[in-house]
Amino acid sequence: MFRARYPFKSIRSYSSLTVKSLYEQLHQPRHDSISVDGWIKSIRLLKRIAFLDLQDGTSVNPLRIVVPLANADYVHFLKNLKTGQTLSISNAIWQDTPSREQPFELQIKDPIESIKIIGPVSENYPLQKKFQTLPFLRSLPTLKYKTSYLSAILRLRSFVELQFMHFFQEIHFTKVSPPILTSNDCEGAGELFQVSTNQLSSPSSYFGKPTYLTVSTQLHLEILALSLSRCWTLSPCFRAERSDTPRHLSEFWMLEVEMCFIDSINELTSFVETTMKTVIQSCLDNQKELLPKQFISLKEDDALSTSLDQERQDIITRWQTLASEKWQTITYTQAIEILKKNYNEVPLFKYEPIWGQPLQTEHEKWLAGEYFKSPVFVTDYPRVCKAFYMKQNSTPDNTVACFDLLVPGMGEIIGGSLREDDYDKLCKEMKERGMNKSGELDWYVSLRKEGSAPHGGFGLGFERFISYLYGNHNIRDAIPFHRTAAGSINF
Amino acid sequence: MFRARYPFKSIRSYSSLTVKSLYEQLHQPRHDSISVDGWIKSIRLLKRIAFLDLQDGTSVNPLRIVVPLANADYVHFLKNLKTGQTLSISNAIWQDTPSREQPFELQIKDPIESIKIIGPVSENYPLQKKFQTLPFLRSLPTLKYKTSYLSAILRLRSFVELQFMHFFQEIHFTKVSPPILTSNDCEGAGELFQVSTNQLSSPSSYFGKPTYLTVSTQLHLEILALSLSRCWTLSPCFRAERSDTPRHLSEFWMLEVEMCFIDSINELTSFVETTMKTVIQSCLDNQKELLPKQFISLKEDDALSTSLDQERQDIITRWQTLASEKWQTITYTQAIEILKKNYNEVPLFKYEPIWGQPLQTEHEKWLAGEYFKSPVFVTDYPRVCKAFYMKQNSTPDNTVACFDLLVPGMGEIIGGSLREDDYDKLCKEMKERGMNKSGELDWYVSLRKEGSAPHGGFGLGFERFISYLYGNHNIRDAIPFHRTAAGSINF
Repeated sequence: MFRARYPFKSIRSYSSLTVKSLYEQLHQPRHDSISVDGWIKSIRLLKRIAFLDLQDGTSVNPLRIVVPLANADYVHFLKNLKTGQTLSISNAIWQDTPSREQPFELQIKDPIESIKIIGPVSENYPLQKKFQTLPFLRSLPTLKYKTSYLSAILRLRSFVELQFMHFFQEIHFTKVSPPILTSNDCEGAGELFQVSTNQLSSPSSYFGKPTYLTVSTQLHLEILALSLSRCWTLSPCFRAERSDTPRHLSEFWMLEVEMCFIDSINELTSFVETTMKTVIQSCLDNQKELLPKQFISLKEDDALSTSLDQERQDIITRWQTLASEKWQTITYTQAIEILKKNYNEVPLFKYEPIWGQPLQTEHEKWLAGEYFKSPVFVTDYPRVCKAFYMKQNSTPDNTVACFDLLVPGMGEIIGGSLREDDYDKLCKEMKERGMNKSGELDWYVSLRKEGSAPHGGFGLGFERFISYLYGNHNIRDAIPFHRTAAGSINF
Repeated sequence: MFRARYPFKSIRSYSSLTVKSLYEQLHQPRHDSISVDGWIKSIRLLKRIAFLDLQDGTSVNPLRIVVPLANADYVHFLKNLKTGQTLSISNAIWQDTPSREQPFELQIKDPIESIKIIGPVSENYPLQKKFQTLPFLRSLPTLKYKTSYLSAILRLRSFVELQFMHFFQEIHFTKVSPPILTSNDCEGAGELFQVSTNQLSSPSSYFGKPTYLTVSTQLHLEILALSLSRCWTLSPCFRAERSDTPRHLSEFWMLEVEMCFIDSINELTSFVETTMKTVIQSCLDNQKELLPKQFISLKEDDALSTSLDQERQDIITRWQTLASEKWQTITYTQAIEILKKNYNEVPLFKYEPIWGQPLQTEHEKWLAGEYFKSPVFVTDYPRVCKAFYMKQNSTPDNTVACFDLLVPGMGEIIGGSLREDDYDKLCKEMKERGMNKSGELDWYVSLRKEGSAPHGGFGLGFERFISYLYGNHNIRDAIPFHRTAAGSINF
């Protein structure tokens, strides 16, 4: 029997191999008998032989199993197998198949002996080949990740998370877990979920004051960065959004980074670019195990615009471009100039670009997708457009040291800034905005008095990034059991 | 200048080194000028020389900086430095110091030139050496992680999380992110937090039905395991506990694992033991960077029971024992027999151990801490003591295929089971418990009809594990900004 790298001799689930582990041993195949478990992806009966494709969710590659139809009993047995059934296979023999699409297959002599059905499917099992459009799959929340297209996005997410962990560990960041339950409203946005117990009458009686789900862990991260120098988190965040778009979730995971001893916004954007490129390069290096050979046949609708191979190649090309080319950087003021010029020449936009007003999603998407055709950092927004904690520039234009990273097709995926570390300036800004009237943010401003440091950070919407990498542009596929404004929670 | 491993040439925050990176280069020290930033941990002026210990939160080791007191200006400058201030140091030269406690120091020629104060402290900066008891530190939530004792527990947590990620990736588990917001109550325990928006009148108007914070992601993980074979998560979970003890949090992180193709509870306990031992061995291998040289002088109170070195040694010995010795396994029925015997001979317990009733915390702690003096798996509890989804044993004793892992000093840190995959048995059990009356768990039972598989998993209370490893036995120190039953949320 093959062995996994760790010594699980006594554990059937580890002596029985995953499909992934078989593919990992391509260059040193073994010729003793193999056991493997999984689900039937497809089955095809020819005259003398049957092809059984098995999947177990650990690999983008299916496992081809070849069964001889040597007698009527075998034919009868094989004919009763159904897509989606769970099988336990034993006594299979490795066979190299260099001339076929898949590099090897497993051969079975006696299917009745070697194939055990350990999980049934119903007569109406819905994952038959012909029905697999994305809208249809999204209507099957308990089954949809049995498809190779959607299970691949979960494995990509898991892989990307590990790459971030490696990277940050390597450069001495500590991963931390700031609270989800909080009494403060980081952004002042007001779109909060409130929390109460189901056994008490008053919403505030459990924790002593009104308690919310965090919209961003940044303020807490600042505390920890001022102790650890460099910290990051990947935490769920919550916004009671009214927006019901493929770019918005009510519950999403945010990768947030906070670090000390950083002085300029260009240091921060360089750091972001290095971080993201390192992760994207790892994806490129592992493209074979990350991207399925077959993309889903029909995506958003029945119209098939590109070939399946083309779609896979488009993703790889995008990763290559992202990893190798220098990302653009412009100031907000430059962005407005570019937008104004084009607004005047061609009426592209619904909203007129005006200095002092936020960029609209249409502006962001056009800048990254049409004008630069590249990720672009837009820096130094007007103070009034951004949050109270951003560091004020020393220039007289009333801007703050911040950036948004815009990417083609998706718009903003990262926002970051230096944080105001001047106690007096911070207090003045909060007062002008009518904040901290009852001292609820005294703890935050007090950080500027006890061993403060120049610091800054950023937040990356994790599902937006995964969805952008995978090229499907709907973040609801990048998280299992998505929570959105218009969606109901069925379980 | 030294360089970090990644090419951050243009970034001051990365060309200026962390304390950890200096220690990593012990065996290949460089002799050009070094820049480093951090906070003053302590300062000591002798006649001709001053010792400045700097920390930056990246390492358990402080950085010793030696400053000549060559003239009155230097003395005046050094006398004005204060513990807790933020410094930016430049033009420092590496000096090996093999005969001293720390293996190297940085030497500065002109302190006025080379030391820049970039962050102040107030007159009342509370982290002076003499005040550092744990209860005192816990009263300083924005400052307490500036101490080496408490920052070490955060770095340990970050390290342990990475080790789990490595391990699970290596054996083909996918890390997933099941939802925090849910309409179901996994354990049926009833201690739920309910979620509403602050802009709407009815609690159910946002998501269409009453929405809660998850108490366990297991039921959702089962869906994903039946697609991916092996999955895990590290997610926040919430319980509106009434218990206010050093072992309970209202918001905690749970590492949950779910895997297919597993048949017996002993396979599962073996897997848990292997997983935990792999992680603990990594801690042992990295003990020097994980454990501070000096443990906090006064822990829970003013009575100092063990020496500081002893405390560090106790932890290492515990890790060694955990990693090398076989963990005990007994059935619940055996556990009751052992407890009964001792209950009759010596009245140790407040509660009489009775077959068919849950083990009390006092029973659990005694079994692991006194009787076995080792982690112990207690398996096969009576069906009535455990959750509805656990797989019923084929034995006639009405037990289920489950385990709790008990550890000395802490009691239960992991609970797990095989899951009932027989559709009829599961439905019958739920009916007997009065569950699923309005079909709210139909989606869950339906999993047993469409490509089911024998499967099981477990949940590890992450703060309990970290706290147990670190030996401080209060899980409130293992998570920044803990949320507990009696605590109020100040920010």
